[in-house]
Amino acid sequence: MLHRTSDPDHNRSVITYAGLGNSVLESAVRAARVACERIDLNGHRGVHPRLGAIDVLPFVPLAGTPLEYCVELAHEAGRRIWEELGVPVYFYEAAATRPERARLEHVRRGGFEGVNEAIRTDPSRRPDIGGPRLHPTAGAVIVGARKFLIAYNINLRTEDITVAKEIARSIRTSSGGFPAVKALGLALPSRGLVQVSMNLTDFEQTPVHVVFLEVVRLAAQRGVEVEESELIGLMPRKAIEMAAAGLLKMHDFQSDRVIENRIESALITSRAIR
Amino acid sequence: MLHRTSDPDHNRSVITYAGLGNSVLESAVRAARVACERIDLNGHRGVHPRLGAIDVLPFVPLAGTPLEYCVELAHEAGRRIWEELGVPVYFYEAAATRPERARLEHVRRGGFEGVNEAIRTDPSRRPDIGGPRLHPTAGAVIVGARKFLIAYNINLRTEDITVAKEIARSIRTSSGGFPAVKALGLALPSRGLVQVSMNLTDFEQTPVHVVFLEVVRLAAQRGVEVEESELIGLMPRKAIEMAAAGLLKMHDFQSDRVIENRIESALITSRAIR
Repeated sequence: MLHRTSDPDHNRSVITYAGLGNSVLESAVRAARVACERIDLNGHRGVHPRLGAIDVLPFVPLAGTPLEYCVELAHEAGRRIWEELGVPVYFYEAAATRPERARLEHVRRGGFEGVNEAIRTDPSRRPDIGGPRLHPTAGAVIVGARKFLIAYNINLRTEDITVAKEIARSIRTSSGGFPAVKALGLALPSRGLVQVSMNLTDFEQTPVHVVFLEVVRLAAQRGVEVEESELIGLMPRKAIEMAAAGLLKMHDFQSDRVIENRIESALITSRAIR
Repeated sequence: MLHRTSDPDHNRSVITYAGLGNSVLESAVRAARVACERIDLNGHRGVHPRLGAIDVLPFVPLAGTPLEYCVELAHEAGRRIWEELGVPVYFYEAAATRPERARLEHVRRGGFEGVNEAIRTDPSRRPDIGGPRLHPTAGAVIVGARKFLIAYNINLRTEDITVAKEIARSIRTSSGGFPAVKALGLALPSRGLVQVSMNLTDFEQTPVHVVFLEVVRLAAQRGVEVEESELIGLMPRKAIEMAAAGLLKMHDFQSDRVIENRIESALITSRAIR
């Protein structure tokens, strides 16, 4: 268990845990069992949209694990949740079985209270496994596989919000910027700064330092300096290594130049852990 | 075993291995036993100075291990090498028992062929453990504890060697620059570049990125750009994290913001490994 948050307004808990694939799979199914036994969504209120007692279950690869392995885990978790708990399952992001289900918002539209009606009028809204109706108290579980998301902000030494908004527009995917980047320009009035607030949804495609250098460049064009950057939550080791190598211009750097990585590889080889 | 090199001119092998303290200690004593049984320095020739069949045995802390623990391991290894193998021992760097023995060059002065004579005329040259004369075939082992040394070069886009030499002089400890930095300016004629070649002997005191930024600044003053930097050998994970955080201006970054580090802490806590 690495992290957990609970929030009374959302009336929702986020639990982050890690391990080898089979342990994570088993833990997910056991967590789903407890949640589905204890939580009745008919009496549940909260501002965050949700479809099930376990609402979303994403498997995220770490440390060189391929995303495809997380897709396999997601599909196996979905099969077990239906067979062992009788709760239907939708698959999203990389685990989606149809393109329109890649986006979580699409799958969850209508929420616990509305999806049964949606399914009645539109059979394409049926669960991927189980159903066709939701479980009467636990709803459905949306199981997926996705890459690690880095929440990363860069604060600029100006109070001019248009600078942050223009830079955000230049770098985000939706306006023709870098791939796998979501970005907004925000004011930080208490600090007298503005912020480019980002989600990097594939740091191997668009690394942290590439975004950082571009924001430095775009800010400098406007006569503005970068005050600092900040990481929200956690970041994978590979993103740190890529940032250090990129910013130090170490063009031939590889992870095996880090002595602890080399030790771990030696241990993994000698113990034959998957 | 992480790395090994052997070189016919030096007629010398360097073996790098890692593990928990007690394993590394036991391996060191076993390696010393084999070397002392097999190598007779009376018939040995090579261009590198040496005092013993196992010439130098430094313990280097990794992954948060305190240097003081490596000093303990060095002292225990020295005691066992004398008691079990009958080979006398000198201690150097952080394991030195007298200030003048901190420097390896001082302890090794005279080499296998000259140290017995030095000891005869100057009792302060006697081994720290055992002796007073060297072992007749295996000499003495110089056992120490020191921090990880990062060998790091920055290549500059000019053929003017004075630029590299001036920058090296500005940054190295011996000319009043950063602490724990050795630096030389070298020509790379085949590439049309010059190089600031460095040893960083305490990257926590003077981090890689601090040196990099200063070299960028000093080169820019002379109208010269940094082409690239290069790591020779290996680098500790903490140095990479410090470089990424420093260059990205993530002022509140800590190692526990890296998800794999958090996982390892959780595993270490749950398994109670030292």
